[in-house]
Amino acid sequence: MDTHDPYAPTLPVGASPYDDDPAFPLHRRGKIEVMPTVRVRDNGGLALAYTPGVGRVSAALAKDPSLGYEYTWKGNSILIVTDGTAVLGLGDVGPLAALPVMEGKSLLFKEFANVDCVPICLDTTDVDEIVDTVARIAPAYGGVNLEDISAPRCFEIEQRLRERLDIPVFHDDQHGTAVVVTAALRSAAALTGRGFPDLRVVVSGAGAAGVAIADMLLAAGVGDIAVTDRGGVVSRERSDLNGVKAGLALRTNRTGISGSLAEALRGADVFIGVSGGTVDQDTIAGMAPDPIVFALANPVPEVHPDVAQAAGAAVIATGRSDFPNQINNVLAFPGIFRGALDARATQITEGMKLAAATALADLVGSELAVDRIVPDPFDPRLVPAVSAAVAAAAVADRVIRQDRSGTDE
Amino acid sequence: MDTHDPYAPTLPVGASPYDDDPAFPLHRRGKIEVMPTVRVRDNGGLALAYTPGVGRVSAALAKDPSLGYEYTWKGNSILIVTDGTAVLGLGDVGPLAALPVMEGKSLLFKEFANVDCVPICLDTTDVDEIVDTVARIAPAYGGVNLEDISAPRCFEIEQRLRERLDIPVFHDDQHGTAVVVTAALRSAAALTGRGFPDLRVVVSGAGAAGVAIADMLLAAGVGDIAVTDRGGVVSRERSDLNGVKAGLALRTNRTGISGSLAEALRGADVFIGVSGGTVDQDTIAGMAPDPIVFALANPVPEVHPDVAQAAGAAVIATGRSDFPNQINNVLAFPGIFRGALDARATQITEGMKLAAATALADLVGSELAVDRIVPDPFDPRLVPAVSAAVAAAAVADRVIRQDRSGTDE
Repeated sequence: MDTHDPYAPTLPVGASPYDDDPAFPLHRRGKIEVMPTVRVRDNGGLALAYTPGVGRVSAALAKDPSLGYEYTWKGNSILIVTDGTAVLGLGDVGPLAALPVMEGKSLLFKEFANVDCVPICLDTTDVDEIVDTVARIAPAYGGVNLEDISAPRCFEIEQRLRERLDIPVFHDDQHGTAVVVTAALRSAAALTGRGFPDLRVVVSGAGAAGVAIADMLLAAGVGDIAVTDRGGVVSRERSDLNGVKAGLALRTNRTGISGSLAEALRGADVFIGVSGGTVDQDTIAGMAPDPIVFALANPVPEVHPDVAQAAGAAVIATGRSDFPNQINNVLAFPGIFRGALDARATQITEGMKLAAATALADLVGSELAVDRIVPDPFDPRLVPAVSAAVAAAAVADRVIRQDRSGTDE
Repeated sequence: MDTHDPYAPTLPVGASPYDDDPAFPLHRRGKIEVMPTVRVRDNGGLALAYTPGVGRVSAALAKDPSLGYEYTWKGNSILIVTDGTAVLGLGDVGPLAALPVMEGKSLLFKEFANVDCVPICLDTTDVDEIVDTVARIAPAYGGVNLEDISAPRCFEIEQRLRERLDIPVFHDDQHGTAVVVTAALRSAAALTGRGFPDLRVVVSGAGAAGVAIADMLLAAGVGDIAVTDRGGVVSRERSDLNGVKAGLALRTNRTGISGSLAEALRGADVFIGVSGGTVDQDTIAGMAPDPIVFALANPVPEVHPDVAQAAGAAVIATGRSDFPNQINNVLAFPGIFRGALDARATQITEGMKLAAATALADLVGSELAVDRIVPDPFDPRLVPAVSAAVAAAAVADRVIRQDRSGTDE
């Protein structure tokens, strides 16, 4: 093609006004591709990988669908599904603008856990339409990772897809975050000599992450958890709660407190911020002695680590990679799906998530310190440990496919 | 993992009863994977390919969606969509059993044309649901290849998706077949000293392929075409035709013949079989002198090449790789989508399809012979020639994106 080619790429490398930010050239043309695992070099190869050979495989699958896990990519592939309504800290940017994030997640799934992950960016935000659409495209995939879908729709979407599909459905913003927070809190509690039953935890934020963290910490045995939203502590007395928060009010806040976040934090052992609000030094100082502070809002933590430390925080974590103790979902989701796929799990249970959190905390092991409460994402032991724990929990919870041995019959 | 691992793969390699057929071990675990094109080896890489770097790219796309073609995989990725109702010669095998075929197509798209192709096997056969589903998942993709969807639903699905989406939508069973048949007929007509306007063509089969072949040959200037289905020649006199066939009756059968396939073939220049019926030696012998016989049913041609030759056929083609002149869609679809994506075409026009057919016929060039009427699928000139012709036709037809230079503004 000569230089006057009218359909040549518009932007030659380096010509973009964005390219002084290294993130842009790195994203050029995207970050993933669909590669053959079988090469077809001649008509003989064509006749096996395509017609007529592929027809014999299809005919066998039509008779025995359980063969799908042996002779297609289904057993190793997942959909990553978003509607673009809650993308990182950006909010509702729509499906196309969410695509670089989904590609990034796909890249991490493959790089860390060899999971084949296809981005689906939905041109709808309607719950019924999202559920129907995902259910209809599910047959070729072994799992569904929901991503960056705003609350409270994300709860209903996940719940309905879990009921409708026989493959794992997992909203990472909820459960991936909850798994890593639970692991980090296990480490932090150990460092400060506390047990989960004795902890009084305050979670700021009653969206996807906040609700899931509260539920998982309850399942993990934390004694008392209060969750706050813009209206203060979520409690049975509030009349302004949506269905999800009203349910949360029944499960949390055992001591029946009310009032603002700052009031809730008085004497609390743990602050977990997933809201984007702010907490000042005096409030941290008013918590129990040696408080644990997880200020996870990105890019601006609810309280700066230096401020929290000055106020006496014993263990501090953020969502950022430039401070110690980054609470990053990449610690969890690759191993969780690897384990679920290896086990051919039909769902991801509370037991599997707790097993993942325990495996993460255990990996820190003898390195445990106030600046090392979670493993390094690039620790080569990470995904093997998490996936093995998750797969074993799937077996224990009896959520592995019943038809998986059907291929021998 | 030890040998008692309950979630170990059920079928170790070689243990399957299917593995004496080499197609099965080749299909184990599928034929495609989703690979990163960017490697993430440390926290610095994470911070560019994932948060926070990816957030800056998403924010830019939210402001200017045309950047999607520069900074995501959208410009090189397509969906391959089936509902599993018309898979190869197998018929309605359902979505999962169709997956090996879709994986095979994805493999060929990448191998031949570097197109990233994601399989979507739909758990619905309802036209409205298929259209809605594909439209909703389209934002992350630059094109849609419909595949193995039964007629007449395939026509409406394609038409409605073409109207609804601003990316190419192409039903390969229709148009890919029609392009290769048109190229092959161009070669065969040249070999037998005929021009398209003088040809009388009979197409056996009024499904996806038959209808598209008839329409494309009309667009290419063939003088007279009759299409037959199980009820005989499709004509204005028939009262048993569905809407698609009734429309076909208005566009074809200029001389107003009626009766059986055998009757229609009397004196015809060309037989194109895409039906799976049978044609006997006497019928071929009753065609015009030096008839052209494309018996494309798979795996059993409507008439065996030896029989057709004995009956006087001058040029013979089949759908099989073990006879000369295989009419194989793989000659067309990789280059057509490569060209459409390179041009950032919003649709695939008649002009683009005719350009592809002409490029295919031209490639045969000086090798033209009765046993060489189409190029070899592995000819390295194939995809470059077809894609360049298709992209140029997209420019000529003014169906390239208007927003494609928006990134500089």
